[in-house]
Amino acid sequence: MTLQSLFYYKTVKYVVAQNKKVGVLYRIFQLTVIGYLIGWVFVVKKGYQAIDETIESSVVTKVKGVALTNTTGTGAHLWGPEDYVIPQQGEHVLFITTNFIETPNQKLDTCSESPNLLDAVCSKNEDCTQGEAVLTGNGIKTGICLKKERNSTGICEIYGWCPIENSQRPKVPLLGKAENFTLYIKNFIRFSKFNFSKSNVLETNNETYLKSCLYDTIHHPYCPIFLLGDVVRKAGHNFQDIAVLGGSVGILIEWRCDLDKGYSKCHPQYSFTSLDTSTTPSSVTAGYNFRYARYFKNAAGEVHRNLYKVFGIHVDIIVYGTAGKFNIIPTVVNIGSGLALMGAGVFICDMVLLYLMKQSTLYRKKKFEKVNRTDIKSEDPKVKLSQQAVLLSDR
Amino acid sequence: MTLQSLFYYKTVKYVVAQNKKVGVLYRIFQLTVIGYLIGWVFVVKKGYQAIDETIESSVVTKVKGVALTNTTGTGAHLWGPEDYVIPQQGEHVLFITTNFIETPNQKLDTCSESPNLLDAVCSKNEDCTQGEAVLTGNGIKTGICLKKERNSTGICEIYGWCPIENSQRPKVPLLGKAENFTLYIKNFIRFSKFNFSKSNVLETNNETYLKSCLYDTIHHPYCPIFLLGDVVRKAGHNFQDIAVLGGSVGILIEWRCDLDKGYSKCHPQYSFTSLDTSTTPSSVTAGYNFRYARYFKNAAGEVHRNLYKVFGIHVDIIVYGTAGKFNIIPTVVNIGSGLALMGAGVFICDMVLLYLMKQSTLYRKKKFEKVNRTDIKSEDPKVKLSQQAVLLSDR
Amino acid sequence: MTLQSLFYYKTVKYVVAQNKKVGVLYRIFQLTVIGYLIGWVFVVKKGYQAIDETIESSVVTKVKGVALTNTTGTGAHLWGPEDYVIPQQGEHVLFITTNFIETPNQKLDTCSESPNLLDAVCSKNEDCTQGEAVLTGNGIKTGICLKKERNSTGICEIYGWCPIENSQRPKVPLLGKAENFTLYIKNFIRFSKFNFSKSNVLETNNETYLKSCLYDTIHHPYCPIFLLGDVVRKAGHNFQDIAVLGGSVGILIEWRCDLDKGYSKCHPQYSFTSLDTSTTPSSVTAGYNFRYARYFKNAAGEVHRNLYKVFGIHVDIIVYGTAGKFNIIPTVVNIGSGLALMGAGVFICDMVLLYLMKQSTLYRKKKFEKVNRTDIKSEDPKVKLSQQAVLLSDR
Repeated sequence: MTLQSLFYYKTVKYVVAQNKKVGVLYRIFQLTVIGYLIGWVFVVKKGYQAIDETIESSVVTKVKGVALTNTTGTGAHLWGPEDYVIPQQGEHVLFITTNFIETPNQKLDTCSESPNLLDAVCSKNEDCTQGEAVLTGNGIKTGICLKKERNSTGICEIYGWCPIENSQRPKVPLLGKAENFTLYIKNFIRFSKFNFSKSNVLETNNETYLKSCLYDTIHHPYCPIFLLGDVVRKAGHNFQDIAVLGGSVGILIEWRCDLDKGYSKCHPQYSFTSLDTSTTPSSVTAGYNFRYARYFKNAAGEVHRNLYKVFGIHVDIIVYGTAGKFNIIPTVVNIGSGLALMGAGVFICDMVLLYLMKQSTLYRKKKFEKVNRTDIKSEDPKVKLSQQAVLLSDR
Repeated sequence: MTLQSLFYYKTVKYVVAQNKKVGVLYRIFQLTVIGYLIGWVFVVKKGYQAIDETIESSVVTKVKGVALTNTTGTGAHLWGPEDYVIPQQGEHVLFITTNFIETPNQKLDTCSESPNLLDAVCSKNEDCTQGEAVLTGNGIKTGICLKKERNSTGICEIYGWCPIENSQRPKVPLLGKAENFTLYIKNFIRFSKFNFSKSNVLETNNETYLKSCLYDTIHHPYCPIFLLGDVVRKAGHNFQDIAVLGGSVGILIEWRCDLDKGYSKCHPQYSFTSLDTSTTPSSVTAGYNFRYARYFKNAAGEVHRNLYKVFGIHVDIIVYGTAGKFNIIPTVVNIGSGLALMGAGVFICDMVLLYLMKQSTLYRKKKFEKVNRTDIKSEDPKVKLSQQAVLLSDR
Repeated sequence: MTLQSLFYYKTVKYVVAQNKKVGVLYRIFQLTVIGYLIGWVFVVKKGYQAIDETIESSVVTKVKGVALTNTTGTGAHLWGPEDYVIPQQGEHVLFITTNFIETPNQKLDTCSESPNLLDAVCSKNEDCTQGEAVLTGNGIKTGICLKKERNSTGICEIYGWCPIENSQRPKVPLLGKAENFTLYIKNFIRFSKFNFSKSNVLETNNETYLKSCLYDTIHHPYCPIFLLGDVVRKAGHNFQDIAVLGGSVGILIEWRCDLDKGYSKCHPQYSFTSLDTSTTPSSVTAGYNFRYARYFKNAAGEVHRNLYKVFGIHVDIIVYGTAGKFNIIPTVVNIGSGLALMGAGVFICDMVLLYLMKQSTLYRKKKFEKVNRTDIKSEDPKVKLSQQAVLLSDR
């Protein structure tokens, strides 16, 4: 082999079989692969793009609206966002109070445990082991079994915040007006692979638009202000129903960005989903509630508290999405492997040609040129050229 | 076909065209593909690695520092982290108060709504529908229109927390000293695909280093303690400016881990970004504020509250990154598809050779060996070998 | 070239070398590639699936249990979830108090700074620059150096919340009973690529199961209620030890879903990890604590507060996982690139055959059919066919 021969072009030798059956089969296969590659992989699935699947997101929320409640215990009370939104600082997970049970003026004292707790039912003092906590209860047993009559079943006395909370389930949402609260969502996203960042807040010169708009799937799809009732409804709930015991709702923000098309074509898509399991609501998993307390001191310096069990809408803003941009590596991988797959087609067509056609024996003979023992023996420069030519096609 | 023939080696027959133009073309193509494969795919892009794109991260923060404010209303007040950091428990999203408006001693009562709200402007009592909430206002209309003079425009009376908050925008940051607060960030990350976990806190024997160091891009790039003023400055803001109305800042922690290089080579990279949109600040989107209230009871047991509207720096710590480790599958995919792409080069060079060269007709004749009808007819062991040899190259 | 010739099937011409060494070598290579492709890529690694690596997750938590503390300062105190869980609303990051230092009745006043702070040690008034904050301290220096005796070293006087907190480290966990608290985790996940969502809460008709079950690796692997002591133990800590100064624990929920197998086969896997660095605990990084305050007003309307420094278990629920579903593109990429790799095997076997075998010269001659200058000159339809046939195998 000389240096010169490095620049000789070697091209594969083909045997042309004038067999239209296999020929058409092969062409069909070729067209399928090319069609799949261009149509599906490149046009539909954008296989020429590198994808950033991990979105970095920062969400800020702000709820507006007021509601008046009027309970027999505490009278008229005005609820502003500083009260009904928890936490108040505007995170991507927020809770909006729609109902509550207030237990005012609790003091650390001894009192009777809730009669609904099986663990607190007793018949004698020995049933209330001193110092033991009541299972999922409100306090520590003092060792005394409180009875109304001598032989009736009683309830253990506990040490805890007394009086204990009324354990009746509410029937009506006290803050039913929460349906009209508005939720403003500011979402900043970033695709670090492409160093691309954007916000969901429209870059408009029209300042007042952002003050007055309200999200609507058709007319205002990019307005970042949502009506709470709307969100809950779109997630598949009836607001006044869910407001009684609370529930979980997800606001999904999808960013599907084709960065080859430019900055302005990358928009968020909002959708809404219930985060509760879709099956029949069981008493354990249904609703959303928790408790918090406000502590006070009286003139004597003694601490008491107001306990609030609050029910409400738990809103979780979930941001997801991908960005794609042209990149040579996935392009090569998709083209290359598509082409390689054609090799599989060649293999199948060859099998058909060489074993299933009438003239298969001839094709095999033509395709496979044997190097025989006789060739090897005649491997001698003195052997005549004409002899070799004849032997070439010998069996 | 015998069993033995399974172990015969079949090698493709080539036609060598001593055409240096196409030969050089093909060699250039080959070198390009190999160069791309080795240089770009493997050396630069580490195409031999499987990538874990999803990082699991847990962040804990702690802010230190105190600031003294002196307002005409409440006098000197010392702010510690328990007051100015919200929430106090040290999450990955935190808010550091830099300014506030205090409205002390609010009671549930009736008073005049803010004159800045268009919805509260009235000329007669009928304009203030009883029981209706003022849009983005502070309470519920009582149905009375409060006027200074008989014919002037008035303001609706509301029921709510009175007196209402002073709606003037602040001009100076009351906690301007927040610039010197320090922020300690503990970040634990995990790449589940490779079961790899690490913390951003330096594993040092020098305990005092972590007590005294301060992050610096050049001298202390791995110190996890940041000066708040520094963070804001690096995000592109002037601290004293942003401190007035607040703003959002992102601390990005990037983990770019090459696990083939070992545990100790995987370090976090910190960068800082503004999370506000870059365009002209509109009154709606600018700033960061929210309200919270502290509730008190007086000696008579009546509730009143101090309302705080706080402005400040919203810090969002965003962790992202990828880990890569050698894996056979992406290696095979990249090599395989690169090799397959060479097939495309062969196709192009063949086209040039067979249709654009002077001797194309000859090359075509050599490359494509036809199997003719005559062959098929002569498919007869008695036909002479010499005849077949001649027919081989027949048209 | 006629239209008809488009449907002729061209098949590569092979030279069959009856060389078993290379033949066997090639077959071994082929089997390796096929074995790798079927066994490793498809069966083990499910290379026929598209993978969604980004999971969208929403977590809700609820802690239950009560604990009684009895400190000399404040007497018996009952802690419910509304007190010891921070934040109370049930997020995916939560803190459960296990120990605390209470500093009751702090007032804004002047007092002596903590003697442990180097920055507060002074020998004369000039050492306490007025208006300067003590480094990591509790207040602002007033400019006075408080001394017990004339020549002893003193401590700067500060303005702040006085008396200052007792800086002694606690020795015993006051809420050691927290070991028996239960943690209920509700996790809703979604794979947006496949529009698949599921919850970790068992869809059971048995309502009471979810009320009474307790997670256990073997017997109740899908019960979403965890014993706090259990979680801490499985993360590698001793509960009573970690409860003193607090610590970070991660509950990892892994979703590894094969969507080709159907909805019901996709289950969460729980595991537990410590989120503290594994090295020797340094005083800076060990533990988990923060402060919060409760504000009160006395009868005269003066504000005072109770400061709590709380230590506890910081639980971070980290959800991760992937979903896979059959997709044509990765299937083609894997098959295609595997097949292409076989080309590399052909190349190696060819090299062996053409340069390392005894009869290499013959094989080279057979494999590479040259097109010579003489051919080109004789490129003339009048040249006799037989001559061409002879020249074919010439040099």
